[in-house]
Amino acid sequence: MKLNRKLRMGMVGGGRGAFIGSVHRMAARLDGEIDLVAGCFSSDPEKSRLSGQDFFLDPARVYATYEEMAQKEAALPADQRIDFVSIVTRNNTHFAVAKTFLEAGFHVVCDKPLCFTRKEGLKLREIVRKSGKVFALTHNYTGYPMVKEAREWVRSGKLGKILKIVAEYPQGYAITALEQKADGAISNWRMDPNVAGVSNCMGDIGTHAHNLVRYITGLEIEGLCAELSTFIPGRPLDDDGNCLVRFAGGAKGILYASQISNGDENNLNIRVYGTKGGLEWHQENPNELVFKRADAPPVVSRRGNSYLSDAAKEATRTPFAHPEGFIEAFANIYRAAATAIADSIAGRKASKAGYDFPTIDDGLAGMAFIETTVKSSKAGAKWVRFPQE
Amino acid sequence: MKLNRKLRMGMVGGGRGAFIGSVHRMAARLDGEIDLVAGCFSSDPEKSRLSGQDFFLDPARVYATYEEMAQKEAALPADQRIDFVSIVTRNNTHFAVAKTFLEAGFHVVCDKPLCFTRKEGLKLREIVRKSGKVFALTHNYTGYPMVKEAREWVRSGKLGKILKIVAEYPQGYAITALEQKADGAISNWRMDPNVAGVSNCMGDIGTHAHNLVRYITGLEIEGLCAELSTFIPGRPLDDDGNCLVRFAGGAKGILYASQISNGDENNLNIRVYGTKGGLEWHQENPNELVFKRADAPPVVSRRGNSYLSDAAKEATRTPFAHPEGFIEAFANIYRAAATAIADSIAGRKASKAGYDFPTIDDGLAGMAFIETTVKSSKAGAKWVRFPQE
Amino acid sequence: MKLNRKLRMGMVGGGRGAFIGSVHRMAARLDGEIDLVAGCFSSDPEKSRLSGQDFFLDPARVYATYEEMAQKEAALPADQRIDFVSIVTRNNTHFAVAKTFLEAGFHVVCDKPLCFTRKEGLKLREIVRKSGKVFALTHNYTGYPMVKEAREWVRSGKLGKILKIVAEYPQGYAITALEQKADGAISNWRMDPNVAGVSNCMGDIGTHAHNLVRYITGLEIEGLCAELSTFIPGRPLDDDGNCLVRFAGGAKGILYASQISNGDENNLNIRVYGTKGGLEWHQENPNELVFKRADAPPVVSRRGNSYLSDAAKEATRTPFAHPEGFIEAFANIYRAAATAIADSIAGRKASKAGYDFPTIDDGLAGMAFIETTVKSSKAGAKWVRFPQE
Amino acid sequence: MKLNRKLRMGMVGGGRGAFIGSVHRMAARLDGEIDLVAGCFSSDPEKSRLSGQDFFLDPARVYATYEEMAQKEAALPADQRIDFVSIVTRNNTHFAVAKTFLEAGFHVVCDKPLCFTRKEGLKLREIVRKSGKVFALTHNYTGYPMVKEAREWVRSGKLGKILKIVAEYPQGYAITALEQKADGAISNWRMDPNVAGVSNCMGDIGTHAHNLVRYITGLEIEGLCAELSTFIPGRPLDDDGNCLVRFAGGAKGILYASQISNGDENNLNIRVYGTKGGLEWHQENPNELVFKRADAPPVVSRRGNSYLSDAAKEATRTPFAHPEGFIEAFANIYRAAATAIADSIAGRKASKAGYDFPTIDDGLAGMAFIETTVKSSKAGAKWVRFPQE
Repeated sequence: MKLNRKLRMGMVGGGRGAFIGSVHRMAARLDGEIDLVAGCFSSDPEKSRLSGQDFFLDPARVYATYEEMAQKEAALPADQRIDFVSIVTRNNTHFAVAKTFLEAGFHVVCDKPLCFTRKEGLKLREIVRKSGKVFALTHNYTGYPMVKEAREWVRSGKLGKILKIVAEYPQGYAITALEQKADGAISNWRMDPNVAGVSNCMGDIGTHAHNLVRYITGLEIEGLCAELSTFIPGRPLDDDGNCLVRFAGGAKGILYASQISNGDENNLNIRVYGTKGGLEWHQENPNELVFKRADAPPVVSRRGNSYLSDAAKEATRTPFAHPEGFIEAFANIYRAAATAIADSIAGRKASKAGYDFPTIDDGLAGMAFIETTVKSSKAGAKWVRFPQE
Repeated sequence: MKLNRKLRMGMVGGGRGAFIGSVHRMAARLDGEIDLVAGCFSSDPEKSRLSGQDFFLDPARVYATYEEMAQKEAALPADQRIDFVSIVTRNNTHFAVAKTFLEAGFHVVCDKPLCFTRKEGLKLREIVRKSGKVFALTHNYTGYPMVKEAREWVRSGKLGKILKIVAEYPQGYAITALEQKADGAISNWRMDPNVAGVSNCMGDIGTHAHNLVRYITGLEIEGLCAELSTFIPGRPLDDDGNCLVRFAGGAKGILYASQISNGDENNLNIRVYGTKGGLEWHQENPNELVFKRADAPPVVSRRGNSYLSDAAKEATRTPFAHPEGFIEAFANIYRAAATAIADSIAGRKASKAGYDFPTIDDGLAGMAFIETTVKSSKAGAKWVRFPQE
Repeated sequence: MKLNRKLRMGMVGGGRGAFIGSVHRMAARLDGEIDLVAGCFSSDPEKSRLSGQDFFLDPARVYATYEEMAQKEAALPADQRIDFVSIVTRNNTHFAVAKTFLEAGFHVVCDKPLCFTRKEGLKLREIVRKSGKVFALTHNYTGYPMVKEAREWVRSGKLGKILKIVAEYPQGYAITALEQKADGAISNWRMDPNVAGVSNCMGDIGTHAHNLVRYITGLEIEGLCAELSTFIPGRPLDDDGNCLVRFAGGAKGILYASQISNGDENNLNIRVYGTKGGLEWHQENPNELVFKRADAPPVVSRRGNSYLSDAAKEATRTPFAHPEGFIEAFANIYRAAATAIADSIAGRKASKAGYDFPTIDDGLAGMAFIETTVKSSKAGAKWVRFPQE
Repeated sequence: MKLNRKLRMGMVGGGRGAFIGSVHRMAARLDGEIDLVAGCFSSDPEKSRLSGQDFFLDPARVYATYEEMAQKEAALPADQRIDFVSIVTRNNTHFAVAKTFLEAGFHVVCDKPLCFTRKEGLKLREIVRKSGKVFALTHNYTGYPMVKEAREWVRSGKLGKILKIVAEYPQGYAITALEQKADGAISNWRMDPNVAGVSNCMGDIGTHAHNLVRYITGLEIEGLCAELSTFIPGRPLDDDGNCLVRFAGGAKGILYASQISNGDENNLNIRVYGTKGGLEWHQENPNELVFKRADAPPVVSRRGNSYLSDAAKEATRTPFAHPEGFIEAFANIYRAAATAIADSIAGRKASKAGYDFPTIDDGLAGMAFIETTVKSSKAGAKWVRFPQE
């Protein structure tokens, strides 16, 4: 970015105890270019108020409802009101909150998945377009420097024509039915179709894997065959899903996500194979990226080195082997969004390379992915064409 | 085993320069209980003769054809003739060679896949049954001690009920079309449908992954959905294949094999997830086996330790961290087969635990796997029920 | 911490382009409890001014000299002036800057090593004691959660009596003589004895390894035998050093540091072996900590899990396998110092467990280490008793 | 090799239950060019006899004493008697057995360390020289293909001038005092100075690390400073030792070995750093060798690939990623010795490159290492010049 001031951020959701709200705040804060100044941190006004205290906010700018917040912030003088809002609520409210703030003239950073249904997403895209505002979606895993390096490799032709992609995202945290309360209610909202949408596992983490594939390879899915499963009885939604994938241009792939892969933590991995070489990246060891090809030894590129692409270098904050992690990757999404927002405020054009954050279009691709996997699975794991729209 | 002498082995195929023949000989030799004494090492009699010289064999026992070998060996006195034959020829001759030696009264060790077609395999099973002879198939990857440990874990209930299995076998050696000669002929027989059968990749290595899954989990495939691909133009057979799998009892899985995964070498891996825990084993790092479960740190069992199961201990030859490898695992198949052959010669019964080598039934399961994946793929990657026979 | 406001930080050093200044600011900022409000970022007033702009500071609080800064900040109303200063200058100025701010009534966070000589350090300790202010030294590697877990293991007796310690810190960045300018001047101040002190390598990174050993094991060095080398000609100071170490209580160890270990990046590792078990931690893979013992499989504890000690849990910000890195570890030093500073401001006592940041005493131990290694090495690598003072 | 027959091997020591005897036999057997035909497997004649049965030997060639064996084998016709003897007895008998067989006209393969004292070793060298026979010492770790690759890298100048070497060999098996029987006797002969010599740990495994350093780098020790320790009370010999090392030509190093490093198994590692690059090899993962240098990503060479040196290729038996291990490395020593023996029998000269197995001179260097470390340690860990002789 560059304004001669920090950007002012508001937040909806993410009060006390919310993991993802805390991550968004740390990510926003890391580079010292964004200040949190307002928020509606919970649908419970008291919790929102206490959260505001935690964050040392002016009580007058801690709101009971997001509608009030949008309205009152918009009414503040230009040099006080928030520049953008960060939406970290549950899936089923993304649309309404984003619509409200976009229409009130604010830029938006929104947690993934984009919204509750793809249909909602299509509407939201219209609203974003009309608004002329920045809309960034926090598919944070593409914020890692070595993921950016991977994309550069594909773009530069280092891998040749892509033939095969294997993206996997096994977690094991849901192997025990923690979400079932004694009275049968569902405490984990991701398992609740009224809140999460048509899918739990594919919506929550399958979309991350899908976004990662698209980001690195630039390839779009043409069709897929998905089998979603619910292994732990009593869950209304999937806790595991396996997909065979056909990409436009002829590449084939496997994409799977799971929350019952007992003992796995956050094991997002991708392997991409082309005619000239293959690459491999593991989220749990994010500072390395392996290049390999037949008849030559594997080469292990490491974050922070002079031999990396500009894209990787610009996304890094510490020297080689001073490990960066999840928060820093997340902060890269915020930094890119902040640059776009600052440019918008300053009336500057984007550089030729554009901004490197996930957009409303990426969010829509994610919604298409979720709904297509569910459709395929419900049909008995048959091949379904990807929506072309 | 225990006879008061070494077993006498003959070999069909595996002459000078043949990789797999050399591996079979090293595996047979390692424990000092088997002597190679006769062979027909090539369909080219001169090459067979020279190979016999390489192995210091009596020229009288180096044969021009396998039929001659079977006949003349059978005519030798009982204390001279071979006890068993090792068949390391191409897929399309396994049946005929095995039939010939079984009917001549010899035990058989045979390379995988079992034969050219499943139909041939069914016939061969009849012949084996009638013969009363030992028939062992060298699915060597199940010879690794830590694979045996993995099976023990599943059997003992350490993983609970199995929910999900991911077996992958990417290689990259066929990324370049090495098999195409200048005149268009196919030099790599695995790519030739008249020699290899209906599949290259699934037949050559997919079956290993399939065998590994069955060995460790004891689960049989109920149905699968497979997409086989031929990425490198000009190949009559598949060089890559992805399968979604449904196992009897409800587990789901992914099984894939590839020879165009650029830069991968022999990257056979398996992950098994159950209600109580998960396991992970990597062929390229075969001396370790990981146990993991939610809410406890991963535990890395290592070959050669006192804490392992008897099955793993009995399959090992060196102390911990004196690494064992491919040949030692292969030798475990030979050792188990030799024990069965020695018992047969001595008129002993097998121990209760039986013998730990792949049988004709395992070979038939492999043929079913190959043919089912091809059938599914040809139908457009539709679900196909596994043959129940 | 807990005040009802953020702490106000000033910074001395760390202007535009300075790596470690940037790290300190990110670390201070991460938790949203510290605001940078003033600074003297360079001995060059113009550079200081521009750096202040970068950080969006009030120009009135960007100073030309640190003396001016101390004086003017002290003169500000209590609700405006800084609470503490962060000193990120070169070694030879730590003492003077720290003295100035302590005596002006400010708390201090200071980069390592403590100062230019141990003698200076002893004086500084007196000043700290008299001042009653918080003094924290940023030996940041002990900020990692899994290092805290390691300490808990030793404290709880999980390793038994410690017998052997191996601490290694090889880097390779100084394999080329980057510090030598065309005119023979030294551009890398760490190689300049007038700025860095009596040692480059042991002072810069050897002290980190030493601090890590002390933090985890609680053991003090009784004597050591060190050989420091200067492999790249023209350097006035060491670029490599190897030590044999005897610890109080009988443990033995190896401690080495190097900047000419070609190809190593920031490869700080520690292994501690006791009668009941051993542990192993690698800075480049900081989210894991291995426990191992004879006759049991290695166990790999991973950051963010419920099975860890409170000390490790409290030092973490993201769930398991959402990797944390260098900045987060650094931020733990800031968070602990901030808690102490807030307690001091609020007139609260420390909790029984005390504060978990390196102190003036740790800094003095580091100075003793540096000077003892140099003394030993100059004597021809003879054993030298550690100063008892 | 190439004779038109297998070589005939005798063995002294290595009867039933002896680990290292079994390894020697597997190693000798692996390539099918050596037959075990005679032996004196134990000082207990009955145990020797039963061991001979285990190995299917002619009872007439299983001897009660090694003197009898040497005499009777020498008296056999040339086409029956052994070509060489493999000595796998305890350290204190190597000299006498080797002398007896060399003087009886046999080639010798001998386990390490060379003998009981360096003085004995010097005498043995005279005997070897006079005999004109092949004498090979089984420092097996230099048999690994990737260790040979490492040597080629150093020889070819790929690392530039060597500056620093770190060789470490921690084991943990002796953390419990298994060798102490109820009556106080020592059951582990390696801890008995009357059998093992002046050192346990440095003699048993320190010499392996030392041999590995010399093999890869070609550098000889000029002086060392060693501290040997006995951590477990009641042991007459060392169970741990740390050395600082100065190499001829200016390189510096650390070499340590330990048997009380709780939880380590057989963790022999070496890192070599030169002006142009560094290398890293780990015995527990022997199929990989890492090359690294500042400003370029690490490259991981893997056994079995076409890009390796001839030396590495010739030392391998299976394709890439079909892992080779300890036995195969050991077999490379036997194969090289067998070639030398066959050449000697056939009256052929060695090829220009010579034979790639450890010699009597390597054994003497090992004895010098053992005795120098003990001398240094007894003097209080002072620097001692290495014997130049």
